[in-house]
Amino acid sequence: MKTLIQGGTLVTMDSERRTFRGDLLIDGRYIKKIAKKIDPIKENVKKIISAENKFVIPGLIQAHTHLVQTLFRGYADDLPLLEWLKKKIWPMEFHHNKKSIRASAKISLLEMQLLGTTSILDMATVHLTNEVLEEVEHSNMRYWGGKCLMDYPNSSGPLYEPTGEALKETEELITEWHQKTDLINYAICPRFAVACTDELLRASSDLQKQYNVFLHTHASESLEEIEVVRKRTGFGNIDYLDHLGLLNSKSVIIHGVHMTDDELMKMIANQTPLVHCPSSNLKLASGVAPIEMYLEKGLKVGLGADGAPCNNTMDPFMEMRLAALIQKPLFGPEALPAEKAFEMATLGGAKVLCEEDRLGSLEEGKLADIVTVDREHPSVATVENPYSALVYSCSGRDVNDVFINGKLIVRNKKHKLYDRDEVIAESKKQLKRVLSKI
Amino acid sequence: MKTLIQGGTLVTMDSERRTFRGDLLIDGRYIKKIAKKIDPIKENVKKIISAENKFVIPGLIQAHTHLVQTLFRGYADDLPLLEWLKKKIWPMEFHHNKKSIRASAKISLLEMQLLGTTSILDMATVHLTNEVLEEVEHSNMRYWGGKCLMDYPNSSGPLYEPTGEALKETEELITEWHQKTDLINYAICPRFAVACTDELLRASSDLQKQYNVFLHTHASESLEEIEVVRKRTGFGNIDYLDHLGLLNSKSVIIHGVHMTDDELMKMIANQTPLVHCPSSNLKLASGVAPIEMYLEKGLKVGLGADGAPCNNTMDPFMEMRLAALIQKPLFGPEALPAEKAFEMATLGGAKVLCEEDRLGSLEEGKLADIVTVDREHPSVATVENPYSALVYSCSGRDVNDVFINGKLIVRNKKHKLYDRDEVIAESKKQLKRVLSKI
Repeated sequence: MKTLIQGGTLVTMDSERRTFRGDLLIDGRYIKKIAKKIDPIKENVKKIISAENKFVIPGLIQAHTHLVQTLFRGYADDLPLLEWLKKKIWPMEFHHNKKSIRASAKISLLEMQLLGTTSILDMATVHLTNEVLEEVEHSNMRYWGGKCLMDYPNSSGPLYEPTGEALKETEELITEWHQKTDLINYAICPRFAVACTDELLRASSDLQKQYNVFLHTHASESLEEIEVVRKRTGFGNIDYLDHLGLLNSKSVIIHGVHMTDDELMKMIANQTPLVHCPSSNLKLASGVAPIEMYLEKGLKVGLGADGAPCNNTMDPFMEMRLAALIQKPLFGPEALPAEKAFEMATLGGAKVLCEEDRLGSLEEGKLADIVTVDREHPSVATVENPYSALVYSCSGRDVNDVFINGKLIVRNKKHKLYDRDEVIAESKKQLKRVLSKI
Repeated sequence: MKTLIQGGTLVTMDSERRTFRGDLLIDGRYIKKIAKKIDPIKENVKKIISAENKFVIPGLIQAHTHLVQTLFRGYADDLPLLEWLKKKIWPMEFHHNKKSIRASAKISLLEMQLLGTTSILDMATVHLTNEVLEEVEHSNMRYWGGKCLMDYPNSSGPLYEPTGEALKETEELITEWHQKTDLINYAICPRFAVACTDELLRASSDLQKQYNVFLHTHASESLEEIEVVRKRTGFGNIDYLDHLGLLNSKSVIIHGVHMTDDELMKMIANQTPLVHCPSSNLKLASGVAPIEMYLEKGLKVGLGADGAPCNNTMDPFMEMRLAALIQKPLFGPEALPAEKAFEMATLGGAKVLCEEDRLGSLEEGKLADIVTVDREHPSVATVENPYSALVYSCSGRDVNDVFINGKLIVRNKKHKLYDRDEVIAESKKQLKRVLSKI
């Protein structure tokens, strides 16, 4: 089955960073051909999607999300990280049942796909991971993620789980879910050092090596969190993970707002990727991660919206814009220009997931994760530079079509798998029950 | 002619901050009635606008814009303030002709109204102010603004104009345009101390008193600018304006990113309002104005997007969200909560313009500047708190209907006075000519 995306402005992110008006041919799961003009008859094309007056971009990669939290958006505003977790997020995660966790996953997947996200690295909660993964499978999202691990008795709130149980379920989930489909990859998810024992973290690392999967954890987000880790272990937050042998090219560290130079160097030496979540870092008052400096030193950096309650919109365009803007007061107006911010959300994310050979750019032979973006709004229409338009002027609301793995998931701003109104109604119903519990 | 806005969530911003599901009756230019239920037959209503599943909010006030710069969006990215002005903005403003300045005003007015802005305080350029004001009149925007004044020979670039000419034209424009219609109010606009002589600033102040109009000027935006003023005058930037007698309740100061405590106290003592432009301050690397502290000390603060080339979207929802987020790393996560950010863009702006008795909230007897906002997007739909939804989750793209002065300007996301495609095509054509000149 061949589909032709015709007459758009292709923003390829290939090695020459070509941007030009042209056509793109999808064959099955792959990008088969990119050219100024592709003949639909000669290529035996079944479906033509017009991208007239649209940008055609690589699918956006959000390398840190929490599907299970999306239901709690707007119910946990204006609090600092640890209080936010203990008073709001953990109790709400704890009170999820099968229906509510499913609703939360569903509305987030719908939202993110509508807004142009085609790959996520996600952290679920301690319980009910199967529900999340089943919904992920249904959604056709390209996914890395898994069950959240929290075994430190006094720092895990109601989500505490004995170490053995946490590890046992993780191994079962890996066996069942890792690469179950083209799109689903398991990631081992110890929440953060504050909520995990040494034993759990070391065993997570062992499991990671055994199954060759990703590990996904928060670190160095807020000064208060770092202080808790230092008091308990004597180490800085990243230092501690290094000390336990956790830093490697498939261990994804989220946030890294406050790393020492030494910690940064350890991340780089171990090719350990970082994910930057600008909205979340601002909203929880964690600070501004010095990403311009990290990139210059050679750190791999991707972007993510984080959970909806600390964000409160899972729009990758918002994160790109904010990522570019907040570096400038620190490093000057030339810091993190639009092209670099766009790179973080495309190729940067692909590198975080060790998928730069298959994702992150529009190139022949790569997987067909592709988004078209309207350039018709007066806020965008006169801007020629595609990076400036996409990063500084567009909104996720401008996304028109979304392909994941060659499959058309969003067409003309409408999701093809989910009925929006149904998903919203079910979310509201489930949210009501969860809120009544806390 | 009576219009009923029916069944929306009214976010009134009245003294009790009431928010409830209800109806709002517009009679001519005014809000006649607000109630849970209004009978359209009894009230002899001519037109009913359903606000089912929508927020109904006071029209948003952007107290600092540059209509004339909108055409240059995306052509002056990633530069510091003074370089940005001298290399890009001033030459581009200089090369405007009647057609291009008209196109720039038109596309900005279209964009801002589509995104929910109903009042602006604007600064035009040195030439062709009549063109701008004619377009403003056509657009039905509620407007304060006027010709930009720049008479400092070596610091005004190509926009330099002799003092006498600048003042003479200002006086003519006041006579012709001030309160020509319900919606148009003149404001005297010396650009900033860097580009103005003492003589011009003093005369501006005299004219202001003579005609009882607003004065609108940039100050304390970047450290480099402040240094130029200090070297030339021996004063800090706000101190200098105070020294010349410019601080009063109708002198609107834009930016104030870097004010001394003493300068802040002078602003407050003189009831001089400030306009905060968060996107612009970040993008030009000017810094983060400590708005939370300013508000606590008692400064009047409004919000504005500034010019499109330093922003690059004239979306007041973006500015509200950013205003809230960037205070938190400075003052903690509770700083500038959503409600306060929303207040800055509504009542705050009304206070800046000394119009709090007529604008900034939905109350019987106030002017009918009203916006309806969809809450159907999955990013917003489950959020009950209207301030959280509007500030953290909504986009200007969610604006559905816009009334200004009782007149319906945007209906179902479509502008009723402008043909979007025509306006964009003309803008592209005019932009091409201006770019060919520089």
